[in-house]
Amino acid sequence: MALVGASGDAAKNTARPQRYLRKHGYAGRIFPVNPSRPEVLGEQAYPNLRSINQPVDHAFIMVEDVEAAIEQCGERRIPVASVYSDGFAETGAEGVARQARLVERARELGVRILGPNSMGIVNLSERIALTVNGVLEMDSPPAGGASLVSQSGTMLGTLLSRGAARGLGFSKLVSVGNEADLGVAELVELLADDAHTRVILLFLETVRDARALSAAARQAHDAGKPVAVYKLGRSGAGARVARSHTGALAGEDRALDAFFRDCGIVRVDMLETLIEIAPLLAGKRPPQRTRKPRVAVVTTTGGGAATVVDRLGLAGIEVEPFRDLTMKSTPKQYRQTLEGLLASDECDAVLATVGSSAQFHPQFALEPVVQASKTDKPLAAFLTPHAESSLRLLAESGIAAFRTPEACADAFAAFFAWRAPRDPACFPRPEGVSALGIPAAQQAIAEAPHFTHAVPYPVALKVLDAVHKTDAGGVRLNVSEREFAEAVRALGKDKVLVQRMERGLAEAIVGYRVDPVVGPVVLVGAGGVLTELQKDYALRMAPVSEAEALEMIEEVKGLAVIRGYRNLPRGDVRALAHAVSAFSRLCMLPEVAEAEINPLIVKSDGVVAVDVRVVNA
Amino acid sequence: MALVGASGDAAKNTARPQRYLRKHGYAGRIFPVNPSRPEVLGEQAYPNLRSINQPVDHAFIMVEDVEAAIEQCGERRIPVASVYSDGFAETGAEGVARQARLVERARELGVRILGPNSMGIVNLSERIALTVNGVLEMDSPPAGGASLVSQSGTMLGTLLSRGAARGLGFSKLVSVGNEADLGVAELVELLADDAHTRVILLFLETVRDARALSAAARQAHDAGKPVAVYKLGRSGAGARVARSHTGALAGEDRALDAFFRDCGIVRVDMLETLIEIAPLLAGKRPPQRTRKPRVAVVTTTGGGAATVVDRLGLAGIEVEPFRDLTMKSTPKQYRQTLEGLLASDECDAVLATVGSSAQFHPQFALEPVVQASKTDKPLAAFLTPHAESSLRLLAESGIAAFRTPEACADAFAAFFAWRAPRDPACFPRPEGVSALGIPAAQQAIAEAPHFTHAVPYPVALKVLDAVHKTDAGGVRLNVSEREFAEAVRALGKDKVLVQRMERGLAEAIVGYRVDPVVGPVVLVGAGGVLTELQKDYALRMAPVSEAEALEMIEEVKGLAVIRGYRNLPRGDVRALAHAVSAFSRLCMLPEVAEAEINPLIVKSDGVVAVDVRVVNA
Repeated sequence: MALVGASGDAAKNTARPQRYLRKHGYAGRIFPVNPSRPEVLGEQAYPNLRSINQPVDHAFIMVEDVEAAIEQCGERRIPVASVYSDGFAETGAEGVARQARLVERARELGVRILGPNSMGIVNLSERIALTVNGVLEMDSPPAGGASLVSQSGTMLGTLLSRGAARGLGFSKLVSVGNEADLGVAELVELLADDAHTRVILLFLETVRDARALSAAARQAHDAGKPVAVYKLGRSGAGARVARSHTGALAGEDRALDAFFRDCGIVRVDMLETLIEIAPLLAGKRPPQRTRKPRVAVVTTTGGGAATVVDRLGLAGIEVEPFRDLTMKSTPKQYRQTLEGLLASDECDAVLATVGSSAQFHPQFALEPVVQASKTDKPLAAFLTPHAESSLRLLAESGIAAFRTPEACADAFAAFFAWRAPRDPACFPRPEGVSALGIPAAQQAIAEAPHFTHAVPYPVALKVLDAVHKTDAGGVRLNVSEREFAEAVRALGKDKVLVQRMERGLAEAIVGYRVDPVVGPVVLVGAGGVLTELQKDYALRMAPVSEAEALEMIEEVKGLAVIRGYRNLPRGDVRALAHAVSAFSRLCMLPEVAEAEINPLIVKSDGVVAVDVRVVNA
Repeated sequence: MALVGASGDAAKNTARPQRYLRKHGYAGRIFPVNPSRPEVLGEQAYPNLRSINQPVDHAFIMVEDVEAAIEQCGERRIPVASVYSDGFAETGAEGVARQARLVERARELGVRILGPNSMGIVNLSERIALTVNGVLEMDSPPAGGASLVSQSGTMLGTLLSRGAARGLGFSKLVSVGNEADLGVAELVELLADDAHTRVILLFLETVRDARALSAAARQAHDAGKPVAVYKLGRSGAGARVARSHTGALAGEDRALDAFFRDCGIVRVDMLETLIEIAPLLAGKRPPQRTRKPRVAVVTTTGGGAATVVDRLGLAGIEVEPFRDLTMKSTPKQYRQTLEGLLASDECDAVLATVGSSAQFHPQFALEPVVQASKTDKPLAAFLTPHAESSLRLLAESGIAAFRTPEACADAFAAFFAWRAPRDPACFPRPEGVSALGIPAAQQAIAEAPHFTHAVPYPVALKVLDAVHKTDAGGVRLNVSEREFAEAVRALGKDKVLVQRMERGLAEAIVGYRVDPVVGPVVLVGAGGVLTELQKDYALRMAPVSEAEALEMIEEVKGLAVIRGYRNLPRGDVRALAHAVSAFSRLCMLPEVAEAEINPLIVKSDGVVAVDVRVVNA
């Protein structure tokens, strides 16, 4: 390891990599590079990389003149350089250009770059703490089967520190910084092949290369390594902070949900869930979903269990069965109850809630949970008191344990929403928007002076030049033959669109667009302005099959009116699904950037598109 | 203290009160009552309460024959008895009757009862640990200014334990059990007068006496003691568990939100927020709301701050200004930045985010936060790593500190939603539903054979006997004079309701009902089946003023269409508010259990009720 810019002042950040490598037991050679002193923190120093007369595996660069250091890496055939120095893409246009030049040159030289603006890497399985992150001041962080790729260097420390405090160990932690060269996707690929890594965790501020990440996630899935993500940007404010901090694009958050689902990545909502979910995922495959998910709860503390049950209910998870054991139950009874549930078809996962005994008698309180014969079914524990040794004991036994009821429910919700990566759908390429096979309302353009047309009455009249036609008032609905001439006059145009009035049971909106981050997505919602106001729509990566479109329709609350709600007449949900699937095939037409059917009238028998808008790329 | 049923086996639960009283420094006399031995854990034992020949302040009852013990409390003039024993209202009808008899007898005897099914009380300010809760195995839990009233005995231990681990101290903690006599409300009253208590925290599974709790919360407000609550039952599943556990009624959760708001109680969403919010509330009054709330964020870790900012955004809180200090900033610069924001009008609260230095250099990292000159503005800290000594240091300085970004945002959201208790509104009592002054659509009942009526055309025809008229198909809309006879025939009834067709810009629904837990509530939503599907409505305790009704309308997303959304024509929001306020006055008519206007047509000028349904009590 060559540390370029290593400081001899132990209090400085730039002294940390050397201190941490030694402190955490790095067995190899360290070459501090510092032109102003012959030795640094007791080890021989070198004026530059050139002067190191031994093989170097990895250079850690902390100086301003990153370019010169990379040149020397090339000369010395150092295969990889981690760049802590900042002043690149995160600073604006000039920095972006500087970064592009750096990467181009590094490629010519055959040097791979982690960063710039990276805090480095920590490899606990092999005792390599090559980082400036202050979390390594800690003594012996535990090694474990989770590996983390983080776009935030400080959050690498945060997650390591929170995990270590309760025995949740990591194998590798990587701060990717600006991802100028080595990015999240490539690291996921490497971790998919890493023997020490059982679960891959991602802390993301943005997704820089969705296609590559999708491929890497599929590779991890094939290797049996679940991938979980905490992604900033659920709210606009969060997205802005993340963006200003990283200089990256922000897509719509719902599109990211669709993306993660599409490639089999488990998304958690809360920060600590990211580390707490690892044991729940390790060695597991995405659950087969045949019914509403059911979590069995075993508890000796009704109030404590209820805090989790409450959140599970909010997440749409059934709690069944619920076993409230008395405080007089023996550990053996507790264990047998757990084993019965783990083996039963009644539930899809088991949660043990442990009360105050977890704090003062860890072994005794956790014995039933640790010793119960396990099955493929997820087993987790929620400890109501502050109980770090119990958390540690469970972590060491590979059992998922949660500190808060909210993270516990979040993890179960994420687990049950987990899907295997979708097979790339194989659909015929449509000839154009009109060839998608979506029935459209009969229409014609009628022109002055006579405005003749062949559309049967009653009709709708629409001006041709307004974007939001309803807003602009350029629409007359339900016009009879008698009223036609007067209605045309009132619009005051030389050309109007005449359209057959279509009535149905409900209106839907079907949308398609190319999200700047994740790519083509399709959405379906209930029609009308409320879809936008309520954000009541389902969104997926395009294309989708009819079966997937049916699942989407199921998610839209406003479309309950055609799914048999109360005694309302049922709409042709299958025809709607067909239209959604057809519309999603626009992703095969690169000329289309955005398109919308609004409204799509849903009848008891079929659907009719009334207004289709297409925006070209 | 008399401990009835005190065990001489230190491992037993019933030995705990004696052990804990001594362990935590109780200075008074303890009288173990145990007929089978002369001494218990080294102190003289008594065969029964009668045989104690000294004054007793409090009896803690752990035996099955609670009735006999209470009789003796009466004889010995012991003013209060805490009953740990179970077998009362929580077990079903027989237990309910047993409990009622017990309380009746205790009242005759002049003995107040805490419980039954209570785990007792902990008074850390005065070193009285009169409880069976195992959390008292801990050494020296810190005393502090928060007091807790809990319907769950185990959660008392959970919250004490979690608080103690990070220096958040309590004054009093009370497990109320079944609340047969002493209930949550009376304890809030007592704590409002308690010199050691600055903030009152409630862990609730249900609300047993809403009227009393409302009065007590107002008293606490007048005494300058904020009250915060964590209440189970946000989801149906949680409510069911809480109910089966306590045998209490469950009202609708949204009605509880309205109730807490009405009486000035701050409701938190997450369990740990309940203890973490205490320092944020201590000494504060409900915020004056003049704009969308703004939290200024100061951080040296962009990624860490973004985790909170993201959640604040989801809660509708603006983050402004955002100060991302570099890692090179000095503590003095940090402190000055904080002080500038605490004194500025730009923001309504200040959040300091502290990174890994919080873990290894607590004093240094927190110096700016601890030393900054405070103002009335809330100041809080979020620590990204595991950093218990920093949490303790902040707790000791009275500064709110959060372990998770989610609880931090939850606390700010709860703080800004906090309102002073509403003054009891003074409205005239209406003569009846028809005297509320809400304009109704002109209508008449037309009867066979001629179905004559004087309602102007077009009209709507409705059958008179269907509950959900639309579902049943017993409605004809927009019937012209020519179509009238045919339409009446089609309905096939001898009597029909003929109503003038009313058209407007939107439909609203206005509802009133007496919630079984909190009492009369009023709601407003957008009309149509979607209100129910989307749960998009605003709900308040009745009655409400027009100004409050305007605030409610503002909360309903679906009503954006009449508030000036896009270029849609504005509806008469004021007339709608008038109608909501008028409808809320139904709470003065005890004969009305439930009522609904659906739809209430909102025009650009006025509103018209089309269908009003009233259910009598």
